[in-house]
Amino acid sequence: MWTNSEDKSLRERAEAVIPGGMYGHQSVRLLPDDYPQFFERASGAYLWDADGNKYIDYMCGYGPNLFGYGHEGIDAAYIAQLKKGDTMTGPSGLMVELAEQMTSMVSHADWAMFCKNGTDATTMALMIARNFTRKKTIVLAKGAYHGAAPWCTPLKNGTTPNDRANQIFYTYNDVESLEAAVKEAGDDLAAIFAAPIKHDTFIDQEDPTPEYARRARELCDEAGALLVVDDVRAGFRLARDSSWSRVGVKPDLSSWGKAIANGHPISALLGAEKARNAGATIYATGSYWFSAAPMAAAIETMKLIRETDYLERTQALGQRLRKGLDEAANRNGFALRQTGPAELPLIMFNDDPGLSKGYAWNQALMKRGVYFHPWHNMFICAAMTEADIDHTLDVADEAFRVVRDAGPLPPVEKLAILGILADDN
Amino acid sequence: MWTNSEDKSLRERAEAVIPGGMYGHQSVRLLPDDYPQFFERASGAYLWDADGNKYIDYMCGYGPNLFGYGHEGIDAAYIAQLKKGDTMTGPSGLMVELAEQMTSMVSHADWAMFCKNGTDATTMALMIARNFTRKKTIVLAKGAYHGAAPWCTPLKNGTTPNDRANQIFYTYNDVESLEAAVKEAGDDLAAIFAAPIKHDTFIDQEDPTPEYARRARELCDEAGALLVVDDVRAGFRLARDSSWSRVGVKPDLSSWGKAIANGHPISALLGAEKARNAGATIYATGSYWFSAAPMAAAIETMKLIRETDYLERTQALGQRLRKGLDEAANRNGFALRQTGPAELPLIMFNDDPGLSKGYAWNQALMKRGVYFHPWHNMFICAAMTEADIDHTLDVADEAFRVVRDAGPLPPVEKLAILGILADDN
Repeated sequence: MWTNSEDKSLRERAEAVIPGGMYGHQSVRLLPDDYPQFFERASGAYLWDADGNKYIDYMCGYGPNLFGYGHEGIDAAYIAQLKKGDTMTGPSGLMVELAEQMTSMVSHADWAMFCKNGTDATTMALMIARNFTRKKTIVLAKGAYHGAAPWCTPLKNGTTPNDRANQIFYTYNDVESLEAAVKEAGDDLAAIFAAPIKHDTFIDQEDPTPEYARRARELCDEAGALLVVDDVRAGFRLARDSSWSRVGVKPDLSSWGKAIANGHPISALLGAEKARNAGATIYATGSYWFSAAPMAAAIETMKLIRETDYLERTQALGQRLRKGLDEAANRNGFALRQTGPAELPLIMFNDDPGLSKGYAWNQALMKRGVYFHPWHNMFICAAMTEADIDHTLDVADEAFRVVRDAGPLPPVEKLAILGILADDN
Repeated sequence: MWTNSEDKSLRERAEAVIPGGMYGHQSVRLLPDDYPQFFERASGAYLWDADGNKYIDYMCGYGPNLFGYGHEGIDAAYIAQLKKGDTMTGPSGLMVELAEQMTSMVSHADWAMFCKNGTDATTMALMIARNFTRKKTIVLAKGAYHGAAPWCTPLKNGTTPNDRANQIFYTYNDVESLEAAVKEAGDDLAAIFAAPIKHDTFIDQEDPTPEYARRARELCDEAGALLVVDDVRAGFRLARDSSWSRVGVKPDLSSWGKAIANGHPISALLGAEKARNAGATIYATGSYWFSAAPMAAAIETMKLIRETDYLERTQALGQRLRKGLDEAANRNGFALRQTGPAELPLIMFNDDPGLSKGYAWNQALMKRGVYFHPWHNMFICAAMTEADIDHTLDVADEAFRVVRDAGPLPPVEKLAILGILADDN
């Protein structure tokens, strides 16, 4: 029996000491009602909320969980290094080893810098591109998420127009709009930023077309600018190399995070030889950037990436989920839009402009132990099994019946109030 | 016998895969020759470099090590939570508990937000002040370090003038210059930023005068702006409350990091009631900001802060060091400038404009197993003993003799080349 009294009690206490009760991407404010805000523990593919309800977790910590929560080998590497030395007065040799491994695995990369947040890595990319070119303008895809710093946060509160100066936007996969943006930059182009796939929230995902990716490369080369692929969210989930290795295009800089240490706190910026001096001459640092334990965990994660079939497994599990959900939807009179790579699923309903079907379905899944997200891409982790997927499909079938039986529903009010439905869907 | 062949070998490998061989505050590029770049392990007050040389470490990881490296109770709390759940799809209840504890310990604070870097916390302070006031200008002390983001990095490479727009500078502790800066901000003042003490690099430290701190408070109140104290480096090292509790002034916002989890990766922004809504309505987040294990470590650290005599201990050890060093310097014909609180020592030589005495002395200390820093404030940790201090004093005496015997030395070339000696000393 699903209950949430402990979650409610924690939310009341949080309301007193945390602004708005919770902030950032893990706030459940815009999720269906009753989504748990607080969690007690996690293991493999599963998550238990503060009330002890168990979920198969398709959010994977919003990306970090690639090999399973609490992975024994990765956590053992972390703990062993923690006992030797973690945050010291300088880095350990593991920093060199990790840089050697990542640059040997990612084909465009000749050097690495490590940091903590994905935003640290994208901000370093911005600074290095400007330092390299001595130019200012960056060209970015409209709606793409590159972090929460003043220059890139999706909410403008607390920022000034100066924070976003020298930015021109294009439409992902639209070569003409990319060309127009670069033309507008004139002789001031420092970089083109691209997500590895279009994985914006609230809308369908898109794989990059080879034409778009290649044109971005050409335009950078013509202008002497740097091409940046922001692989923080998708890195090593689509390939054992840069995600754009799938379209045969090498960026100059790529930002990484989330899955690179399976949840231990580390992010990275990888770069090509030509940007090395520009990387060496910006000032970038943080209190915990040189800590050794997350590097030990990342080295163990790199080994699993190289030596296991995690990629083929997560792809096959994603395909099994996608196919089964389509069948279950059809059986119940619905049609789904499942977009992007199957291992990074985004699942929306056709004919659901108010997102009410999606919300009702996700809520029914959640209350039955399957944690899905209605408008953010999800993640398949290598700890999931075919049995997990099949159980998910059974629960999804039940949830479709709940939505069908509910009949027509009004648009989701909390989204309508914010104008999200009107603007983006 | 001190050797550094392993360090040299790691540096050569690092040169190939890390821009400049190392970046950020833990690069030893500007330290005396032969300072080790890589470390193997750390325990209590001690550090072993990659070649196995042991040091009493007065840098404490540049601040995080407050209770001793590898503190048993703190690390046990971290590991126990890691085994339950760390980076999950949402926070654990520990986030609420930590926010409750920190807001009850820090007298100006009614709410808390947690993040990873010190820079995250200072950047949130900037955004919240602008969001609260709907104004743009921030007034900061010249030369103060508030992080490495484009708006505050000490090196301009890779930044644009827009990144630093709406900033006016004053001189720390100089009430007239503060008033002039605020006057220049006109009706656009969003915040005054202040370090808890003047702890800039390369120059003497200063405690804040009560007049300066009170005037900053008044000027903010008159303008409806927010007063921000950046306690990332000094927080909980000078007081069990905000560092400005020592001068009886309550900021509206304070940034914290480094020592709050004894080296585990977490930072925080604490705020007063009036800024709560402004905090709730900016977008601030990061992949690992909600991770539970560092919060478990921070809760254990808070307990030690409340329940042990660490503060009085580190103060007494700092005083013992200061007094003994002055005596040893005098015995050898030198005079030191030891500035700032004794538990955050900064030690410079009188009559040493080229820093050559300081460099020679620090290098001699380092080769004898005492890790000092010639131009950045150091840190006393609670794992140090009187015997450690007394041993340090013996070594310092030897090192003074080395400097004395060396006779006059030229200015430190690597600093002169960068213009640091000319500009800042």
